Amino acid sequence: MTRTQFPFLASAALAALVAVPLGVFAEPVAYPEGYRHWHHAKSMVIHDGHPLADPFAGIHHIYVNDPALEGLQTGRYADGSVFVFDLLEADAGDEAITEGERKLVGVMVKGAETYRETGGWGFEGFAGDSRDQRLVSDGGQGCFACHQSQADSDYVFTRWRP
Amino acid sequence: MTRTQFPFLASAALAALVAVPLGVFAEPVAYPEGYRHWHHAKSMVIHDGHPLADPFAGIHHIYVNDPALEGLQTGRYADGSVFVFDLLEADAGDEAITEGERKLVGVMVKGAETYRETGGWGFEGFAGDSRDQRLVSDGGQGCFACHQSQADSDYVFTRWRP
Repeated sequence: MTRTQFPFLASAALAALVAVPLGVFAEPVAYPEGYRHWHHAKSMVIHDGHPLADPFAGIHHIYVNDPALEGLQTGRYADGSVFVFDLLEADAGDEAITEGERKLVGVMVKGAETYRETGGWGFEGFAGDSRDQRLVSDGGQGCFACHQSQADSDYVFTRWRP
Repeated sequence: MTRTQFPFLASAALAALVAVPLGVFAEPVAYPEGYRHWHHAKSMVIHDGHPLADPFAGIHHIYVNDPALEGLQTGRYADGSVFVFDLLEADAGDEAITEGERKLVGVMVKGAETYRETGGWGFEGFAGDSRDQRLVSDGGQGCFACHQSQADSDYVFTRWRP
């Protein structure tokens, strides 16, 4: 080992020690291409002042792919089940709220083994309309911490509305 | 013609004279079975105080079938294009708005000839979760009166949000 290699390798080893337990090296969550044509499960408006307002203020829609829909209806999620949290600005005025610009696209994908550090779900966020500007830098631990309250439904907040 | 037939036939003729210009005898608009799995186009919240609050206060979602999606993207609507206006109570509290009970399901279906009295679109509403409790009794003239402001987009308010 050369002297110039050592500092790099030592840093990499240290990073691995820190990062692996946080799941940072888990498979990256893919952008959910085509989700605007998936099933729309539900929507919600979050105002400033809500505990989740930073960063989730706005109107959000939850879209699910076919496996996630089956999961919502059976309680069992196959690997590949995907939830999308599509967050738009909520434009208020004239006694109405309409949809504004997209703030972010959140993704939650089932991978029981791949994402075992975070309950079997991978979490990611994509800024605005970007497909590659990623927002999650802690391996999804922050997302999972909130979703842990939903352990009885495999960490899923959404319920299917017929 | 018997004496017992006459009053009935006279009433029917009178009803036809009154009703046909209003399109009451146009083909009934079918309940949009399966629309919860159609494309979700957009959503909006209407508060009390909005001009459309009676009867449209709440949170509504617009769902479109495949032909209507193509129409949104091309500006030309084939017969059979359907828009659904799914209106739910908007439950406000804790700095958020969540979905409540269903108030009504509005339907707008393209039939250039069938519904020529109302711009080539048939209009209907179904109360709550009912598939047969119909709300439109004027052949859609009231709905169409409001939609006439959108003549440039074939009477459609919705724009597709990618």
